[in-house]
Amino acid sequence: MTKPTLSCVLLVVLAALAVTARAARPVGLKHVEASTLTLCGQLMPGNPNPYHRVDTVRFKGFTRAENLQVRESAGLAVAFKTDSRVINVRTVYGQYQSPVNTTGIAARGYDLYVRRDGTWRYAGSGCKSDQRLLLGEDLELVANMDGSMHECLLYLPLFAEVDSVQIAVEASARIEPLPRPFRHRIGVWGSSFTHGTGVSRAGMTYVAQLSRLTGLEMLSLGCSGHSKLQPYFARVLAAAQVDAFLFDCFSNPSPGEIRERLLPFIETVRQALPGIPLVFQRTIRREGRNFNLKADSLEAAKIAVADSMMALACRRYSDVYYITPSATPPDHLSSVDGVHPDDYGYTLWARSLRGQLLPILKKYGIE
Amino acid sequence: MTKPTLSCVLLVVLAALAVTARAARPVGLKHVEASTLTLCGQLMPGNPNPYHRVDTVRFKGFTRAENLQVRESAGLAVAFKTDSRVINVRTVYGQYQSPVNTTGIAARGYDLYVRRDGTWRYAGSGCKSDQRLLLGEDLELVANMDGSMHECLLYLPLFAEVDSVQIAVEASARIEPLPRPFRHRIGVWGSSFTHGTGVSRAGMTYVAQLSRLTGLEMLSLGCSGHSKLQPYFARVLAAAQVDAFLFDCFSNPSPGEIRERLLPFIETVRQALPGIPLVFQRTIRREGRNFNLKADSLEAAKIAVADSMMALACRRYSDVYYITPSATPPDHLSSVDGVHPDDYGYTLWARSLRGQLLPILKKYGIE
Repeated sequence: MTKPTLSCVLLVVLAALAVTARAARPVGLKHVEASTLTLCGQLMPGNPNPYHRVDTVRFKGFTRAENLQVRESAGLAVAFKTDSRVINVRTVYGQYQSPVNTTGIAARGYDLYVRRDGTWRYAGSGCKSDQRLLLGEDLELVANMDGSMHECLLYLPLFAEVDSVQIAVEASARIEPLPRPFRHRIGVWGSSFTHGTGVSRAGMTYVAQLSRLTGLEMLSLGCSGHSKLQPYFARVLAAAQVDAFLFDCFSNPSPGEIRERLLPFIETVRQALPGIPLVFQRTIRREGRNFNLKADSLEAAKIAVADSMMALACRRYSDVYYITPSATPPDHLSSVDGVHPDDYGYTLWARSLRGQLLPILKKYGIE
Repeated sequence: MTKPTLSCVLLVVLAALAVTARAARPVGLKHVEASTLTLCGQLMPGNPNPYHRVDTVRFKGFTRAENLQVRESAGLAVAFKTDSRVINVRTVYGQYQSPVNTTGIAARGYDLYVRRDGTWRYAGSGCKSDQRLLLGEDLELVANMDGSMHECLLYLPLFAEVDSVQIAVEASARIEPLPRPFRHRIGVWGSSFTHGTGVSRAGMTYVAQLSRLTGLEMLSLGCSGHSKLQPYFARVLAAAQVDAFLFDCFSNPSPGEIRERLLPFIETVRQALPGIPLVFQRTIRREGRNFNLKADSLEAAKIAVADSMMALACRRYSDVYYITPSATPPDHLSSVDGVHPDDYGYTLWARSLRGQLLPILKKYGIE
């Protein structure tokens, strides 16, 4: 849901406060637009707004909700190095959503990692409250660093359209693009699971975790609730330049939609991108099945149709694969809302993918 | 932050919508006030509002923020059995908060478990969006159950004051209090960690998880940001009837406050409740330390003072203990915001407590 409900009175108050806030901003910082650094995770680079995942002027057919989703910055991250002791971020938002099953930090905030001993280590995360957001203040992600050069990876908001993302560092500090920290280009198209619903920070989606775990660049186009094998999405994917595709497309569609749309979907992508591996994921277990007999049988039906259609697809097409990830720990406690995993569920998902996906990609020289 | 910003115009619209919503409520359901069933987790039973954790008319000295927090239903759960195929909940909210580091589901929503094979298994969770909340609609937690008798445990909101919680079941179904599913009474006083900041559902606090893991009834009085060994909190705790106390009180206070307040705090509780074990927890690792040198040294100083004061306290008082929980996985990825763990961090915390706390409690016949 967008946030159009702030009254005019409130806006006037906020505008007045904004003047004060701007005056109170820390002096001695300089701001650098994130898109001038190394932007990672872009399935379709070169969009007029660099933080849009799809150019909605070029690609048509989306519903109103999808149109917003493909413009959200989910899955994007900016890689840079700096010797600043402070790292802030300032955002100009287009729209943002506030899902009840995902933190504000993940939805409209930021998640910063710094490389230490070859590993991306958590460094800071946060967002402003609704009340503070319109003031245009910087968000402080980390302060009091040691002043040596650090390699940084900053994940952008999952459920926000951003028109500008400025990274603020000390005026005297260096800030430079980092050489691309991930190899190859693996497109990932999917549902709310790929979008990141349920996580507490943008870097905890299974896609982001898998990138950090493997060093492979995952290019996420998750559209919560809308990964239904639509032909207009197939046309977007067919126009992408990637070395492989990973699909999470059996969570949202009905059994009938899977039966009707899967093969034409594969046909469109296959024709445009012959010879690259197309890896489909079985949908994960939804904990909402546990006591709801109807949800249980609907899930079983969806999975049965996907299984049988994928068996057909794997016979008909070469380089098409079907794998089974898991986001379920032994105690089944990783569900936020009966559908979406929490951070740990997504960690398990990423780990389960690594074991199955890497051997497939390796056959294509992707490693 | 409370939500006083809805304009009058919006309230009128919502009131109008509410009429429609009430008319549209599912027919054939009956509503039972949760407090007439088995309310678990109450440190101070018998409050005029049964979902308040502390009677703020009886106990004074709280700041405005603390006054709200002790009235929030964090840590409370209602145990019942029913053969209804549907379980809904209807809430009358007093106030609620919307922290950016915690989901709406955890802050103002519900988390339902059903006992299966002796284990509390996730059954459903959710909350209404801000826009739907004021309509007074039922929230559906689970539907299409099998109609046999089930034992249920429903966790109440963490960051909401609730004036009424009605559980809705089919009109023809039975709903009865469950015999108390947890043994003994262990008071837990603490910070945002005990309150549950960072979780995705109310049942994922370390306190709730520890109750389910051990079968012991944990009575939570977590007050985010305000667990500072204040004398007026000691007076509340001294008036509670418990078999043991577990404290998470070294996260919020400054080193100076720890030095000054710890021994008088123990003295107050000790005099009122002689002979029961008082178990203090060392504060967990905050991931915000990773690159922030100032945060790192402040944390180190706080922990050093707590360690030395607790060494003194353990010498001076019998039945006082100091243990070290951990919420940190090997990859350090369990932090929501540099301070608070996510669900998995709290799972690790609960598991680490079990091993250290149970042997202490056993010495007092608490097992």
